[in-house]
Amino acid sequence: MYDVQEVRKDFPILGRKVNGKPLVYLDNGASAQKPRAVIDAITQFYENDYANVHRGLHYLSTVATERYEDVRHKVARFLNAGSSDEIVFCTGSTEAINLVSYAWAAPRLQPGDEIVLSVLEHHANIVPWHFLRERQGVVLKWVDPEADGSLDPQKMIDAIGPKTKLVAVTHMSNVLGTHVDVKAITEGAHAKGVPVLVDGSQGAVHMRVDVQDIGCDFYAITGHKLYGPSGSGAIYIRSERQAEMRPFLGGGDMIDTVTRETVTWAHPPLKFEAGTPGIVQQVGLGVALDYLTGLGMENIAAHEADLRDYAQARLDGLNWLDVQGHAPGKGAIFSMTMRGAGHPHDMSTILDKCGVAVRAGTHCAMPLLSHYGLTATARASFALYNTRDEVDRLIEALELCHELLG
Amino acid sequence: MYDVQEVRKDFPILGRKVNGKPLVYLDNGASAQKPRAVIDAITQFYENDYANVHRGLHYLSTVATERYEDVRHKVARFLNAGSSDEIVFCTGSTEAINLVSYAWAAPRLQPGDEIVLSVLEHHANIVPWHFLRERQGVVLKWVDPEADGSLDPQKMIDAIGPKTKLVAVTHMSNVLGTHVDVKAITEGAHAKGVPVLVDGSQGAVHMRVDVQDIGCDFYAITGHKLYGPSGSGAIYIRSERQAEMRPFLGGGDMIDTVTRETVTWAHPPLKFEAGTPGIVQQVGLGVALDYLTGLGMENIAAHEADLRDYAQARLDGLNWLDVQGHAPGKGAIFSMTMRGAGHPHDMSTILDKCGVAVRAGTHCAMPLLSHYGLTATARASFALYNTRDEVDRLIEALELCHELLG
Repeated sequence: MYDVQEVRKDFPILGRKVNGKPLVYLDNGASAQKPRAVIDAITQFYENDYANVHRGLHYLSTVATERYEDVRHKVARFLNAGSSDEIVFCTGSTEAINLVSYAWAAPRLQPGDEIVLSVLEHHANIVPWHFLRERQGVVLKWVDPEADGSLDPQKMIDAIGPKTKLVAVTHMSNVLGTHVDVKAITEGAHAKGVPVLVDGSQGAVHMRVDVQDIGCDFYAITGHKLYGPSGSGAIYIRSERQAEMRPFLGGGDMIDTVTRETVTWAHPPLKFEAGTPGIVQQVGLGVALDYLTGLGMENIAAHEADLRDYAQARLDGLNWLDVQGHAPGKGAIFSMTMRGAGHPHDMSTILDKCGVAVRAGTHCAMPLLSHYGLTATARASFALYNTRDEVDRLIEALELCHELLG
Repeated sequence: MYDVQEVRKDFPILGRKVNGKPLVYLDNGASAQKPRAVIDAITQFYENDYANVHRGLHYLSTVATERYEDVRHKVARFLNAGSSDEIVFCTGSTEAINLVSYAWAAPRLQPGDEIVLSVLEHHANIVPWHFLRERQGVVLKWVDPEADGSLDPQKMIDAIGPKTKLVAVTHMSNVLGTHVDVKAITEGAHAKGVPVLVDGSQGAVHMRVDVQDIGCDFYAITGHKLYGPSGSGAIYIRSERQAEMRPFLGGGDMIDTVTRETVTWAHPPLKFEAGTPGIVQQVGLGVALDYLTGLGMENIAAHEADLRDYAQARLDGLNWLDVQGHAPGKGAIFSMTMRGAGHPHDMSTILDKCGVAVRAGTHCAMPLLSHYGLTATARASFALYNTRDEVDRLIEALELCHELLG
């Protein structure tokens, strides 16, 4: 039994007030709050066990290295990767996708080669590919979502032509909450011999992920959205793809030997990890994944589905509000605009006065907003610790928006 | 008056034992321990103020953004940059130098163009340039240190030819402690129209840095060596050089607009910072810099100079031990080998049994070790919290090495 009130006690910040009102934190799509276990692990690590990793033989360095490398196994289990060697640590999805762009795609793609993208993508899964367009003549092929925000896997597959070298697609839209059938897309892409990168920044937070079942080649996650520390993250890279990659960042750890004339590389995954890593952040990520696993991703998903249904029903009752995206099975993410007047920025400001934190703007997804003819939305994005009461608080605050701006 | 015993109370980990002995932490060249103020700031931030930055209008996001951006000013003051816009946040020197390699050098350097490097460099200031050699035919020109480990600035300047496009040099050797006269090198390089990158990973930890006085174009620092959190760091980039740079990592924050067809960039420094940054780490770095400024960099340098002289005198008394590097004004970093038998790895293991943490290996500086005909050293690197008593503990432990291995 998932007891959200007990869960909330694990998150110190949820007890605070904002503008005199109890905080209702609905900006989880941007970043999630941290459970006590994660915060304490950081403190304890710095107080007792801190040292650099991989390079020392002394006790603390050995402890730190074991703690750090253990997280690689935790990430592998969390994503059900076949081997922890397929997990490369990163600072988050942005660095992860840039790694793929610079280390896998850039040296392989020729002018005129194509990358197929959905219009749902976050800028983190767009801009690294624009670099390749700008710098080496790669062509970006875009696949539109449907009117309800869903993405037809067959349209993604149909967009793959003989010059397509990669499909890059999100597992869940950070704007609409659309859950994308990345398994079907991967099957279709692989049938055409094309690898698939999945941006799991949102997906891994809200559902159980099995990269072997999906079959994708790359799956990027962001620790700070997964209730872990800022600056933590990882990417699953199938070993066949790793073998095709050159290094990305150069420095310590990723080398075997360095001379004046030449360099040889460490074996993957270290080949793709340069310099002192985010040791303590990754240790914190490991604790966050333990926390999620302890609650059970299925239980979290069920709780959030209940929140989604309740919030959707209540939002549907506001006949002056539009919610973008109604794809079946979507996540508890609601991008809202007021009919007529009422800019999302003003909505966000009024909601904030009521203690309700939402995000207003383009949510790093300008092509998607543009597709729907929008310049901004106010986005309420729910997490494992949110409640039906908080949905009610959101609705009350929205009604105040309508009163003041409508 | 610098009271090291009072300072030590600020560092919780220094109270612990290792292998039954009070910890003598002399692996500061790899990473420094964290004061209570830094650890507490991380905890408090996650407990009270955490949110994503730059993208939100709600209260917590505004607080987080202010705290985060305030650190940019602190870094600028710490390095005496002319403007905080010249500070780009990074995860450390490795990412910082890769940024310069990918975003400034790669699009500018042609086959046959040269980069002048000293043999003192850490792999973080070597491998990114090897990428350019390997990928686009750039030539690396190496300048040897003297027998005592010092680096003659004139030799660096003389190595600059008509095809030289960059000088990349450390401020302080992480192996020998050599303090490099980067101001003289910069003056000579600029007289020939060549920009200078300074790797300040060690230098900024042990002396007061003034990038305007040095005159360099790039100055990279690593937060975790500066008593800040792992994954924190920054690079000073002179505005003229920023104007010559294309973006490096692509994603949120660094764009102005994104469409299907094109991207336009945010103004520097944001242009060079993609995705959710290491928010909490950088806030912690700000606290660490406040801590250092509070103690006074000159006071820290004076304390460490005393430790250096005391350690050097005591090490000189061990006639079976060689210390590499005796450059005048060097930092308190000692790379040691035993004459005859006694591998540095075994030394490190024995020292560890005595509670003394040192690093054994190549210290990410293989060309330097190779230059001196070494395959490894045991390195004791001192910090602001080390004491003369700890030097004595090191000497005792070394004597045990001699007894067991000699």
